[in-house]
Amino acid sequence: MTHNPIYIIDGLQYCRWDRGVFEQMREGRVTAVHVTIAYWENFRETVANMQTWNRMFEDHSDLILHARSAGDVRDAAAQDKTAIIFGFQNCSPMEDDLGLIEVLYDLGARFMQLSYNNQSLLATGCYEADDPGITRFGKQAIREMNRLGLVIDMSHSAERSTLDAIDLSERPIAITHANPSFWEPALRNKSDRVLKALAESGGIIGFSLYPFHLKGNSDCTLEDFCTMAARAAEEIGVDHIGIGSDLCQGHDDSVVAWMRNGRWTRDTDFGEGSKSKPGWPDPVPWFKDNRDFGNVTQGLLDVGFDTEDVDKIMGLNWLHFFEESFSAHGG
Amino acid sequence: MTHNPIYIIDGLQYCRWDRGVFEQMREGRVTAVHVTIAYWENFRETVANMQTWNRMFEDHSDLILHARSAGDVRDAAAQDKTAIIFGFQNCSPMEDDLGLIEVLYDLGARFMQLSYNNQSLLATGCYEADDPGITRFGKQAIREMNRLGLVIDMSHSAERSTLDAIDLSERPIAITHANPSFWEPALRNKSDRVLKALAESGGIIGFSLYPFHLKGNSDCTLEDFCTMAARAAEEIGVDHIGIGSDLCQGHDDSVVAWMRNGRWTRDTDFGEGSKSKPGWPDPVPWFKDNRDFGNVTQGLLDVGFDTEDVDKIMGLNWLHFFEESFSAHGG
Repeated sequence: MTHNPIYIIDGLQYCRWDRGVFEQMREGRVTAVHVTIAYWENFRETVANMQTWNRMFEDHSDLILHARSAGDVRDAAAQDKTAIIFGFQNCSPMEDDLGLIEVLYDLGARFMQLSYNNQSLLATGCYEADDPGITRFGKQAIREMNRLGLVIDMSHSAERSTLDAIDLSERPIAITHANPSFWEPALRNKSDRVLKALAESGGIIGFSLYPFHLKGNSDCTLEDFCTMAARAAEEIGVDHIGIGSDLCQGHDDSVVAWMRNGRWTRDTDFGEGSKSKPGWPDPVPWFKDNRDFGNVTQGLLDVGFDTEDVDKIMGLNWLHFFEESFSAHGG
Repeated sequence: MTHNPIYIIDGLQYCRWDRGVFEQMREGRVTAVHVTIAYWENFRETVANMQTWNRMFEDHSDLILHARSAGDVRDAAAQDKTAIIFGFQNCSPMEDDLGLIEVLYDLGARFMQLSYNNQSLLATGCYEADDPGITRFGKQAIREMNRLGLVIDMSHSAERSTLDAIDLSERPIAITHANPSFWEPALRNKSDRVLKALAESGGIIGFSLYPFHLKGNSDCTLEDFCTMAARAAEEIGVDHIGIGSDLCQGHDDSVVAWMRNGRWTRDTDFGEGSKSKPGWPDPVPWFKDNRDFGNVTQGLLDVGFDTEDVDKIMGLNWLHFFEESFSAHGG
């Protein structure tokens, strides 16, 4: 490889984590990963998932550490470990209780989506027909998340709710894993209007490598993906883009069914898939696991980014976002 | 008053906390208080109690702060605030789940009694007829508490379990609120054997001002209490004693009934009281609330302690114990 980015930080993964995955993270020189620890889990179930992670931090302390701050991410880099940052793809862990936001923050949560595909108590999801915007409870939650330093993530939220959240939040928000609609008009991808508002407010988007978010899906080429990144950089500025691979490695199809269906439907929801493609999509050949970030780095260089911009996209932008976002008053 | 101790640290209180109590803490120059936030509460109920405290930390941030380390206690002193340290008088918050110990530690718990009057899943309480010692689960819990820096408190535990805990724990333990049996032979007070083992292992006892733990109960004199402290200092060393007032201010009698009966009995357990005295005892006239620590300071001076030893008993011993106890590897 012609260039090693200073940091490699991934804005979202949901793997079947085990020592093998952590070893691949180290092989791929991955500095930090925002990991999903809840989709539909309630508070107690989310705590149980945190306990599972706590055991992994003990058992694999030579490979990973639990990061609660940008400083912890830097410490991980210095120790040749991968920093793990907790996040939720839905607000189910806080149930109907505003005070649980601080409890979850104290336990390490640093990202929370206000909704996941469906209407939540806080915001509308991207698969609902109508989007009435951020709810009354949602406004309270945004204020509390702002106070603590829990990042608002609108990856799976609908357009109006997302614009509302950007407007209502006093701190920059994130879209941890999605792509621009101008490139691939999936319901999960984001309009020019959202991207512009996001960037103007100091926010960041992590570009997804999940095939359903890619033009051509599993056949998407590295060059096409990186060309999209170049166009996005032109439109919203290279400081507001990063990677959020949405890597979902090692799970069987029951897991993607849980992500889509939770406990909310008797019908089967196929999400971005379909009845004929109900399971996980095949990964693109140039990004199968954590060892493949080097391909993305090279792809970005090949479409004309200089090394300074590649460093930003591959990690520095996320690190700076963490610095501003993960504590009560930034820093 | 002839002497102001460097720090005033109270090893245990369970008040009906509100702004008035916090103002009294400041008036009494109280640096830190270990507060009880669970007797019989399960995990979720304990979290709800933490949420109540989180709101109080916000609403009364001019008077109190949440302390998780000895450094936080020193910060409180520098800011003229009182540091609040969370603790449980029972192991009910961890339910039957070893992994909840780390979760509770992450949420700020720094003391946990292994049992409260009754047999628990971990240890025997002081009102049981027989004491089989620390249980299998208890041994695991002690190891986990040692690993994290969650202090083992045996105030309400029985003799053999307490000796076992001192022996099994790789770190010094605390008896946050009790007195020596040699002075007042209440079931809640501690034998010479326990006190000696406690001190030899580097532990600390906080002397209680709860009338049922005092010679003469509510009629106990300040001089008698301080003379007891002087004898204890001779027997186990002045470095191993402090104050753990057990101040229970402002509660009605339903609260002491909850403390004694939880959800475990259909009969009424009167604890240290009796059918004719079912409620809270009257406080001693020289220690009614947080403004009265000056009386204790003066009483200690009057029975012959020098100012250096008074500083230790009133706060420095606890601070040094916190320094050694509240993190994974001390410090």
